[in-house]
Amino acid sequence: MKVLLVGAGAVGAYFGGRLAQAGAEVSVVVRSHWERIVQNGYQIDSVDGNFCFRPSQVLRSTEEYTDTPDWVIVATKVLPEVDLPVILRGALASKHTAVLLIQNGIGIEEPLLAAFPEHEIYSAVAYIGVTRIDPCHLNHQGVHRLIFGRCDGQPPSEKAAGLAQAWCSVGVEARAVDDIRYFRWKKLLWNTPFNPVSVIGGGLNTRELTDGGEIEALCADIMAEVAAVAAAEGVKLEPELLEETMVYTRSFPPYKTSMLVDFEAGRPMEVEAIVGNVLRRARCHGVETPKLQAIYALLGALNRRNLRG
Amino acid sequence: MKVLLVGAGAVGAYFGGRLAQAGAEVSVVVRSHWERIVQNGYQIDSVDGNFCFRPSQVLRSTEEYTDTPDWVIVATKVLPEVDLPVILRGALASKHTAVLLIQNGIGIEEPLLAAFPEHEIYSAVAYIGVTRIDPCHLNHQGVHRLIFGRCDGQPPSEKAAGLAQAWCSVGVEARAVDDIRYFRWKKLLWNTPFNPVSVIGGGLNTRELTDGGEIEALCADIMAEVAAVAAAEGVKLEPELLEETMVYTRSFPPYKTSMLVDFEAGRPMEVEAIVGNVLRRARCHGVETPKLQAIYALLGALNRRNLRG
Repeated sequence: MKVLLVGAGAVGAYFGGRLAQAGAEVSVVVRSHWERIVQNGYQIDSVDGNFCFRPSQVLRSTEEYTDTPDWVIVATKVLPEVDLPVILRGALASKHTAVLLIQNGIGIEEPLLAAFPEHEIYSAVAYIGVTRIDPCHLNHQGVHRLIFGRCDGQPPSEKAAGLAQAWCSVGVEARAVDDIRYFRWKKLLWNTPFNPVSVIGGGLNTRELTDGGEIEALCADIMAEVAAVAAAEGVKLEPELLEETMVYTRSFPPYKTSMLVDFEAGRPMEVEAIVGNVLRRARCHGVETPKLQAIYALLGALNRRNLRG
Repeated sequence: MKVLLVGAGAVGAYFGGRLAQAGAEVSVVVRSHWERIVQNGYQIDSVDGNFCFRPSQVLRSTEEYTDTPDWVIVATKVLPEVDLPVILRGALASKHTAVLLIQNGIGIEEPLLAAFPEHEIYSAVAYIGVTRIDPCHLNHQGVHRLIFGRCDGQPPSEKAAGLAQAWCSVGVEARAVDDIRYFRWKKLLWNTPFNPVSVIGGGLNTRELTDGGEIEALCADIMAEVAAVAAAEGVKLEPELLEETMVYTRSFPPYKTSMLVDFEAGRPMEVEAIVGNVLRRARCHGVETPKLQAIYALLGALNRRNLRG
């Protein structure tokens, strides 16, 4: 199996590295640290056993890849300046090549579906605790679950089952499912309240987000708004799920959300994928989402200010 | 006329200084910089002509004032730790003494009305551009308007008319009115959206608050919620007033709100007077205020974090 991995941050490099471990020929396209990755590959310290990931090729763009990949796996952040159809065009000459997006948010697949209507396009929801110690050194603290499904709503192909199987063979809990939309919205139940509020509230960790007071109530209200938008989209999230998500978050040792980590490092935040697109869906359906509107406005202002430095 | 001024920050010292200029005997109670104020008084650079304000007495508490004041004027910030009935008790032995609160927010007079039911208690809404250069040196850039009225809803007394007259004699636009609640709510139309959003949005000036985008829309929504709560309280704010407030704010040269100045200096913000009390009134009346709820939660979190350092 030939895999071209685009975006080898912590999440991408981890799951790509596991595929290489499973015997796939995994090449990576990276924007920075090219020389170090060529020399060292990635060192991955994992609770499930340390390993080294040496990509077959380390490339600077998809155009440099001369072979026909079975899979293009995309693990970039979802930002307005990242134009995926343009970035991926070089690697999608053959419709044999399937795409898997390991990315957060909602509405992220639409530009690709429009640009490549004949390719199998999947999106994945990842659950993983992995951080980057330096560009070539990751720390995997626990959990590595991937749930993916076809963005056009069709059931997963044999090829997708094969990809899941490759991951499972090295211990990753990967699963190809029929209705990926359900899982994407389910993950937004967490991402849409907690990520923005952690930033807007001045740097709140998960313990402070579930304070039993006004902040937790705000997060719960945002969660309910997300569930209402999902329902309008035909995705039913069980009411118990909202309370379970809160209970689960309370049970964590206090930690910073990924959006807060990005914000504090002066990096762009995934405002549109995680909040803006939910809000646009709400408007289409006439669903009232006042709390989402408020956090969208405030998060956007903070993001712009942060990027101006 | 004998006046005891409690809280001689920029606003208090300015209006107190003007009364002294009008011939009143004005003493001040200050928490800090006692010696410097005794030595120098206040130097006030004003667009209307510079002047010096030398208080009759500079005191550390109201108990040190041995005379019976005609007026106790309070210009402290409205913070949970400032217990006005306790602070003022020493100066309110005689019911001859009237009280004027020059303070922001709503619901600020209730503890005093309960503690001193036989005193005339007024509250004022101040419009003034004054900043403190150092503890004894103020800069008055423009406007000095005071509108005040009795907190129990009765019409202003002769004594109140006399106070307004004293200010007017030195050019301050002071006016005693029948329905101060209208003016207090009207001022909240500005304070409740713009002050908190300037802070929560990461330090937005008035130009950025009226950006014609999501932030301005958020401010407009909060304004509409404030007007709805006012209406439920029996205070009718004309719909044009909301648009006028926005137009007026757009016309300013960009400047920082007072809450943002406090936040950046690590000082406590008037969260309850300006947001929390509005929200509690809304709950009493069953008025929906989702945007206010969101900013209250976020502002509270930022305030706590800021005060922890």
